[in-house]
Amino acid sequence: MPLINISEESSMSVLEKLAGKFIVIEGLEGAGKTTAIQYIKKWLLSKGLAEQQLAFTREPGGTVLAEKMRDIVKMDVADEQLADKAELLIMYAARVQLVEHKIKPALTAGHVVIGDRHNWSSLAYQGGGRGINTNLINDIKQVALGDFKADFTLFLDIEPELGLARARGRGELDRIERLAIDFFNRSRAVFQQLVNEETNAVCIDASQTFAQVEIDINRQLDAWLASL
Amino acid sequence: MPLINISEESSMSVLEKLAGKFIVIEGLEGAGKTTAIQYIKKWLLSKGLAEQQLAFTREPGGTVLAEKMRDIVKMDVADEQLADKAELLIMYAARVQLVEHKIKPALTAGHVVIGDRHNWSSLAYQGGGRGINTNLINDIKQVALGDFKADFTLFLDIEPELGLARARGRGELDRIERLAIDFFNRSRAVFQQLVNEETNAVCIDASQTFAQVEIDINRQLDAWLASL
Repeated sequence: MPLINISEESSMSVLEKLAGKFIVIEGLEGAGKTTAIQYIKKWLLSKGLAEQQLAFTREPGGTVLAEKMRDIVKMDVADEQLADKAELLIMYAARVQLVEHKIKPALTAGHVVIGDRHNWSSLAYQGGGRGINTNLINDIKQVALGDFKADFTLFLDIEPELGLARARGRGELDRIERLAIDFFNRSRAVFQQLVNEETNAVCIDASQTFAQVEIDINRQLDAWLASL
Repeated sequence: MPLINISEESSMSVLEKLAGKFIVIEGLEGAGKTTAIQYIKKWLLSKGLAEQQLAFTREPGGTVLAEKMRDIVKMDVADEQLADKAELLIMYAARVQLVEHKIKPALTAGHVVIGDRHNWSSLAYQGGGRGINTNLINDIKQVALGDFKADFTLFLDIEPELGLARARGRGELDRIERLAIDFFNRSRAVFQQLVNEETNAVCIDASQTFAQVEIDINRQLDAWLASL
């Protein structure tokens, strides 16, 4: 009887600790974010959460209007490139829309939200990749989201060459992809800097086998949970 | 012969003064912006500019991608309202896109650009109307456009009731439109404040007859030209 009570209390406490938490996966193309999200889901279910207590988001997108914004970013229009700062502003417009309509309501309802990309991706791609000044991006972030941020961020670190090759499902890159390597190297450097600066974030070596990545993710999530 | 020389010099000098200038019309719905733009065009042609030296823009929109952004702002999606800050960010994304792809290239080519709305509309509608803090909007503006701004702004001032009635082509407002009056009154107050603060801007009483509005616009444009 006392044993059962303790176990129930401890189990409730884990659920209480996780309720309303926003966990984010960040990383370059081909880092394995989709697979990692499955591992996080498995871990959360193993802690006693029900499927309906989990919400999954991807950025940019995740609501009807935010997906329309995603379409604009991906759109190929003859003779008209999307201006870098227009891209940045749309990314944050989509992020505000997702946060206000999906993420915050889910967190308020006590769900755990697992995000496929969030704020770091703008700092990495629009900042590092496109070269927009970080202070400007932080100004936009502050206007758009205030102090809202992920409770825990897992950064899947991978060499751009390996990530792109994985993403393309083959070993060799074409000329355009090799040109993109510089862009991704600059983005990666920002991710690495952010994970070093941020307390509630960890770096996972995504060049490892999936089995090893899952072990690392479980270990990091356990450590984070213990810290809550 | 000397007379002809003087006339040619003086005429060239007017064209030189106007080359690369960005003239903006601002004002509430039904203030008569479309008609006013025709008066401005007439005035510019009367100064010796050719049609192909004039470029007309409207905001939000004006490029393929910016029009897609306009569509999102106007879109009616069940159970999903566009968040105020998402609206603000999209407005600026569309503005950056228009400025970089249309306005700046036209000004650089020495054309005169006549804009149907520009930055003030965000301060009036998203700021005054929706209540977003002006400093936040100015931060976004600075990130998006830096110091880029209109060379001359004509604000067509009108009572919201009269403007809406005109815009609807009839004398009476329905319940929703009357509810919108508060929104437009707050927006108008911001326009009025901006026109008071800004040097290169004038207020035109848009409740007057079109003939009188045209006289006022011509007079203001003449005074502005004389100041160049």
